[in-house]
Amino acid sequence: MINVLFAGHPTRWPEYQIPLRDAFAKAGLSVDLRTDHAADQVDYIVYAPNSPLQDFTPYTRTKAVLNLWAGVEAIVGNPTLTQPLARMVDFGLRQGMVEWVTGHVLRHHLDIDFDLEHQDGSWTRHIPKLARDRKVTVLGMGELGSACATALATLGFDVTGYSRSPKSHPGIRCLHGADGLDQALTGAEIVVLLLPKTPATENTLNARTLSLLAPGAAIINPGRGPLIDDDALLAALKTGQVSRATLDVFRIEPLPKDHPYWAHPRVTVTPHIASETRPETASEVIAENVRRSEAGQPLLYLVDRALGY
Amino acid sequence: MINVLFAGHPTRWPEYQIPLRDAFAKAGLSVDLRTDHAADQVDYIVYAPNSPLQDFTPYTRTKAVLNLWAGVEAIVGNPTLTQPLARMVDFGLRQGMVEWVTGHVLRHHLDIDFDLEHQDGSWTRHIPKLARDRKVTVLGMGELGSACATALATLGFDVTGYSRSPKSHPGIRCLHGADGLDQALTGAEIVVLLLPKTPATENTLNARTLSLLAPGAAIINPGRGPLIDDDALLAALKTGQVSRATLDVFRIEPLPKDHPYWAHPRVTVTPHIASETRPETASEVIAENVRRSEAGQPLLYLVDRALGY
Repeated sequence: MINVLFAGHPTRWPEYQIPLRDAFAKAGLSVDLRTDHAADQVDYIVYAPNSPLQDFTPYTRTKAVLNLWAGVEAIVGNPTLTQPLARMVDFGLRQGMVEWVTGHVLRHHLDIDFDLEHQDGSWTRHIPKLARDRKVTVLGMGELGSACATALATLGFDVTGYSRSPKSHPGIRCLHGADGLDQALTGAEIVVLLLPKTPATENTLNARTLSLLAPGAAIINPGRGPLIDDDALLAALKTGQVSRATLDVFRIEPLPKDHPYWAHPRVTVTPHIASETRPETASEVIAENVRRSEAGQPLLYLVDRALGY
Repeated sequence: MINVLFAGHPTRWPEYQIPLRDAFAKAGLSVDLRTDHAADQVDYIVYAPNSPLQDFTPYTRTKAVLNLWAGVEAIVGNPTLTQPLARMVDFGLRQGMVEWVTGHVLRHHLDIDFDLEHQDGSWTRHIPKLARDRKVTVLGMGELGSACATALATLGFDVTGYSRSPKSHPGIRCLHGADGLDQALTGAEIVVLLLPKTPATENTLNARTLSLLAPGAAIINPGRGPLIDDDALLAALKTGQVSRATLDVFRIEPLPKDHPYWAHPRVTVTPHIASETRPETASEVIAENVRRSEAGQPLLYLVDRALGY
């Protein structure tokens, strides 16, 4: 019997309990999963940095701490954490992002909103052009951005990917650096923002860069709120330079009720739903790491303490 | 110089003129494209069955009649038509259908309408399940249906395809026959209708078959209007057995202004835009066939007079 302590935030236990049990069973592991094991009896800790558990000293036989989040910056420096630490790379988060981005890119490409707004009996036909003639630019070609860009290229879109450092992906025009950013935005009809939040990426979309886009471009932001200069976007929506924006992330979340985005007829606010860790798929990663550890195999997504991730 | 007569319906000439010229030029062909060549000077006829041209007798040197439509049933029996006849298989029509179907499947899968209906500052989060856990059934696995099913499976959906005769496609559960239809519909969460219109397919979705679906299923019909028993669908929308329907085709088109579909809050009417031949891509097929004919190669999509297609 393997003793696994669930030490994510207590509020998450109800949604993780069954998926974790299912995943352990599917992996063929005999696991006693609880929130209240005696510290010296714990083999593995399922963890999240916002857990009440911050002192790992009593967990003397624990073989690994398995994080439920991708980010470990709040725990990696904890001096009591001497056990191996694995971060979460959730298949479900990546796949969910691909589905959300592809859905909203197709929504803007097909102008589905036009149809939804013409349910008045008018039979107003608009035939969209084909994806091969639609320029989509994905800013940020990390794990999420490149997965989305690849899915869009597979569907036939004319995809450009921008990243800080050079990348190469089949079927995607990959650009990088400051010149690359301007080139990637010039003439873009749909822009997807998946850059990380750093001082350098703040206000990537501003009055100047928005003016580079094709007139009537659509903006989709499932990345980070500060990537966009909100006043510049509202101004571009006013002139029509940007026709529609779908925004999932904001500088302040939940987005305040009086923010102009909520009432804007051509802005769709979604409540930070594009990048969500799913208990089912995250549990599969946890179970796979317990299985690996028990089989003497190296852990997936082991954190390098020196690098901090 | 190759003399090509445009004898589609005269109203279509403005939209075909430039794409045809571009396609001929791209194929390296010197073509004199007009609507008024002398009959005995015409090498190729670009044709549509609703053309005023119905007597092919004077076109003594014409090497082929190249149809702009997929359907040739209205012209194949014309006794004056002795020249080879090619039907249209438009890459753009298939690709446009794939994009439209994928966009609306993702719209229903992600419940984008829920977000669009919650732009009131409420920050109501709903995390959709992943595509792998979403049962999508495509009825009709011909050229269009199988292309859509394949695109959906590539995105990760749990796809079942139904067709009259047995088919096999990688990554898709293929069913056929009467039992297969019931099995394909049982538990389906999103149903895409791409069956041909025949006496046997009329009212494929009726009160009985709609009751087989997962409660709250979504219906997407880009195929043919008569595939659905409209009263049964309206009843299923009322009980909630069907949550939403997106309908592109109808028994009468344009859909009459007083039809209950227009005003229904959970029905989206689109004006027969999913399956549209695009002048750009159709022109590429026409040019390729002229190129082939001039090079002594067999025509693409040559109609077999005996079979009638």
